[in-house]
Amino acid sequence: MKIAFLGLGSMGQPMAHNLLKAGYEIAVWNRSPAAATPLVNDGARLCQRPADIAGSEVVISMLADDAITHDVMIVQGALDSLAAGAVYINMATVSNDLTRKMASYCSEKGIHYIAAPVLGRVDVAAAGNLNILTAGEPDQLRRVQPVFDVLGQKTWHFGDNPEQASTVKLAANFMLATVIESVGESAALVKAHGIEPKDFINMLTSTLFSAPVYKNYGGMIAEERYTPAGFKLTLGLKDVRLAQQAAEEKNVPMPFASVLRDNFIDAIAQGDGNLDWSALANVSARRSGLK
Amino acid sequence: MKIAFLGLGSMGQPMAHNLLKAGYEIAVWNRSPAAATPLVNDGARLCQRPADIAGSEVVISMLADDAITHDVMIVQGALDSLAAGAVYINMATVSNDLTRKMASYCSEKGIHYIAAPVLGRVDVAAAGNLNILTAGEPDQLRRVQPVFDVLGQKTWHFGDNPEQASTVKLAANFMLATVIESVGESAALVKAHGIEPKDFINMLTSTLFSAPVYKNYGGMIAEERYTPAGFKLTLGLKDVRLAQQAAEEKNVPMPFASVLRDNFIDAIAQGDGNLDWSALANVSARRSGLK
Amino acid sequence: MKIAFLGLGSMGQPMAHNLLKAGYEIAVWNRSPAAATPLVNDGARLCQRPADIAGSEVVISMLADDAITHDVMIVQGALDSLAAGAVYINMATVSNDLTRKMASYCSEKGIHYIAAPVLGRVDVAAAGNLNILTAGEPDQLRRVQPVFDVLGQKTWHFGDNPEQASTVKLAANFMLATVIESVGESAALVKAHGIEPKDFINMLTSTLFSAPVYKNYGGMIAEERYTPAGFKLTLGLKDVRLAQQAAEEKNVPMPFASVLRDNFIDAIAQGDGNLDWSALANVSARRSGLK
Amino acid sequence: MKIAFLGLGSMGQPMAHNLLKAGYEIAVWNRSPAAATPLVNDGARLCQRPADIAGSEVVISMLADDAITHDVMIVQGALDSLAAGAVYINMATVSNDLTRKMASYCSEKGIHYIAAPVLGRVDVAAAGNLNILTAGEPDQLRRVQPVFDVLGQKTWHFGDNPEQASTVKLAANFMLATVIESVGESAALVKAHGIEPKDFINMLTSTLFSAPVYKNYGGMIAEERYTPAGFKLTLGLKDVRLAQQAAEEKNVPMPFASVLRDNFIDAIAQGDGNLDWSALANVSARRSGLK
Repeated sequence: MKIAFLGLGSMGQPMAHNLLKAGYEIAVWNRSPAAATPLVNDGARLCQRPADIAGSEVVISMLADDAITHDVMIVQGALDSLAAGAVYINMATVSNDLTRKMASYCSEKGIHYIAAPVLGRVDVAAAGNLNILTAGEPDQLRRVQPVFDVLGQKTWHFGDNPEQASTVKLAANFMLATVIESVGESAALVKAHGIEPKDFINMLTSTLFSAPVYKNYGGMIAEERYTPAGFKLTLGLKDVRLAQQAAEEKNVPMPFASVLRDNFIDAIAQGDGNLDWSALANVSARRSGLK
Repeated sequence: MKIAFLGLGSMGQPMAHNLLKAGYEIAVWNRSPAAATPLVNDGARLCQRPADIAGSEVVISMLADDAITHDVMIVQGALDSLAAGAVYINMATVSNDLTRKMASYCSEKGIHYIAAPVLGRVDVAAAGNLNILTAGEPDQLRRVQPVFDVLGQKTWHFGDNPEQASTVKLAANFMLATVIESVGESAALVKAHGIEPKDFINMLTSTLFSAPVYKNYGGMIAEERYTPAGFKLTLGLKDVRLAQQAAEEKNVPMPFASVLRDNFIDAIAQGDGNLDWSALANVSARRSGLK
Repeated sequence: MKIAFLGLGSMGQPMAHNLLKAGYEIAVWNRSPAAATPLVNDGARLCQRPADIAGSEVVISMLADDAITHDVMIVQGALDSLAAGAVYINMATVSNDLTRKMASYCSEKGIHYIAAPVLGRVDVAAAGNLNILTAGEPDQLRRVQPVFDVLGQKTWHFGDNPEQASTVKLAANFMLATVIESVGESAALVKAHGIEPKDFINMLTSTLFSAPVYKNYGGMIAEERYTPAGFKLTLGLKDVRLAQQAAEEKNVPMPFASVLRDNFIDAIAQGDGNLDWSALANVSARRSGLK
Repeated sequence: MKIAFLGLGSMGQPMAHNLLKAGYEIAVWNRSPAAATPLVNDGARLCQRPADIAGSEVVISMLADDAITHDVMIVQGALDSLAAGAVYINMATVSNDLTRKMASYCSEKGIHYIAAPVLGRVDVAAAGNLNILTAGEPDQLRRVQPVFDVLGQKTWHFGDNPEQASTVKLAANFMLATVIESVGESAALVKAHGIEPKDFINMLTSTLFSAPVYKNYGGMIAEERYTPAGFKLTLGLKDVRLAQQAAEEKNVPMPFASVLRDNFIDAIAQGDGNLDWSALANVSARRSGLK
């Protein structure tokens, strides 16, 4: 199975490497070709342009956002270079809007579109332990399952319609953001009453809230440790906005998402946009006069 | 150490029983004396009136709410019956307002007031595995630590001021409510996109959200299983309101708490007040036209 | 008709004066008696204690808040001094809770309780042009209508239950607060786009929003002129909280009220509590990075 | 001055007619040409295609939304048909995004772009009494002022950047939506307390809230008279969303806009999308159990 991989950022690079190590023949493309060097050294074929992936049976993209994905895959001709019957797997977090556009474009070309965004950061990607959230034609999902088995510890299937996977990914990121906001608000509440936020968070995560997400974000908030950014606050706003769009499509009011949007905007206005998104907790602290 | 225990509801009864089994001499009082019978059969002394606890060294109350606590302990004379130097431990979830009032009343009588609300429901109380959130004079906390060791698996200390423990308890309940609301909103979002909420929740709780609280409430919401009520929705509104009051005292805006309040009120207006508070998820479902 | 007037603050003083000028025999009481001097010079009888109003047929109070009203009228014995058949008119903005308590206390004594909060500030009170929002027994309202005719330009009747008038007053103050918040948000929006808020507000108030309330608050916000305080921001928070309580009694979610509460708290945390409540607009400006 | 007018809907038709009556030479285009007949009968020249406006010195469009404006003016070649130096006036309510795109497209062609959305409905347009909110190059605004003088009672100038006019228009529509929501919430509050909303609204609009907007929307809400739709609820959601986008561009949190968005979505989910946008008040009524 000849695979092409477009987008060799911090996530894409280790993912492509894992496929290479698993023995797949890989063609790679990245906007700045330097990122491809280690892969090329290990046997990957370098594409100069997106359209050079012609001949690939399976194409995976892990590109930064909607606009870049659209540009690389459609405008720069990556999809047009493929033969009918190929599978295109988009593993980035994108909007439902883009998902529809890409699926429809693929459909006209006889290409099978699979949405497969992932849960897990760089180290998880490197270990091949991602959780892969998929939606698309069941036959095609079976066909590329070996690829997913290399990249992730588990593949989840949410339906035949690619939007279903992007919706689930956006819902999961929304859930993460609600954790940050709720810890931020309660940390401000207890701090205002003279209690160390870390004592409160330690108690929570030792009892009912013993999930990694509370431990990680709780720890960062208690220590106000917002650099380096695991996930930038500006990206948090983007994902909440995409979740709101997915919700609006089906008439789902999401008041927590609305609070998140306003608070992310507040954080960016105060200059925190490049911090880790857990710095959303600064908003509660500032508004309470605690900073 | 002679202990008095007032309030033998679903939580108070097993707690008092554990103290009895641990060998303490216990006087018990309950509004309807029938609840005291099993304890009396096992050796507890029955008080006809709250003031009959006179002579106790340590008094524990686990009464339903602010008004009843005030009535039993002050109006009906329980505290007046105690000798200076006694310790009064209030283990119920009450407002900071009441905490201040009780602490001040005790202080005038030379009684030591300890706030010690708990995390854990009936089965946890029965197993002596509560998490006990305390605040009060350190010396007095050390004095009653053996009592806490019988009732709970762990005692947490949040400061010398009793309000600090009630604030922490209210913050913890706020956190629980945010879990319910966020799961409710995202369950509506995915359901509106044709995805089974249980598949979504199963994925979440198998990955980043592997805490008991997400498993329990997520499961209830996925199955719309809101009876029997582990914790009634009307009590959820009450606790969010108390958290808001604690926040307002120190000028802490809590926009998630505000959303929770409005949604709890909505739920009660639709007749869901006696369901488990995870039925808050019905609000998102109804507002999205999914019910 | 012998009238007693308790509470001679900035509103009470001109109101009592108008009654005196209209020829009524007036007994007056105020916490600090100095405020009574001008009235006494004009013929009012000074009461040393609230209970000295004994013998009055109609009692009016215009006291600062719930606690003081309760203290003066009940604890200090003003109501107890009255004969059955007297009318007690509470013209201050108080909670529905206090309204119920006072009405019930009066009812036991055979006193007729009328809630009659007012719209209008000091100058309006002085001119006898208040709008008086009443609820109570229709017969008694007719009986005291001549008094209202002196104090106000118009008397509005909202029902037989005194809570209905306090609810209307709280709803009106909520409406005023929404005007301030909406002007504050849109002023921040246009300012962030390089438009002078005063140009925007001038356009609005010259067209669809040609009401006094938009002109007054819009002007203050455009000029950031928040002193002297016509109505203190801390009182704005209090009234929004009372509106929320009135709403919660009948299961009415009010998400705009929730936003107002959080933003008033934010304003107070930043030190703006003593400014005019239109300084709520500072919250939008600060959160947008415009201050 | 040869003028072209594209978009002869309920607003465009009377506006074009006024220009004709004022003696201008007008070319008109509409998707369905039938709407142009009365104008052609009165002397307007009918364009078969948007590009047939070639030769016009001033072009006005009043098209339904962003997508149609983009399609007619760019894709179908209206702008390409113009000579450098022409002025294009967009009088519809569109997004800042589209405003930027159109302005940049015009700039490349040497066409002067003016944003000039209006306040006022059909009858106001027919009477030539619109309020016209403009932004663009001051020289060009002076050049077309005679045109605005025909269409409106007053022209407001908000800056040189066309986005400034679209931002002001979106801010004004946001303000209108806040009026509807605040009346809706307080109407629910008073109704739940047994007070007729119409009595409450009558009092408000006779006193502090004596603006047309409160009278109109207040009356509709009091009588639950939501058809015929003066402005459809779905369009209300669209405009709030555009206001949120304009706010996000400059980092302005707008929590009232967030509440509006969620409530408009709720209304649409319950089937009220085609009612007048004042039917937003149904959301408060339903959530309070009053419907």
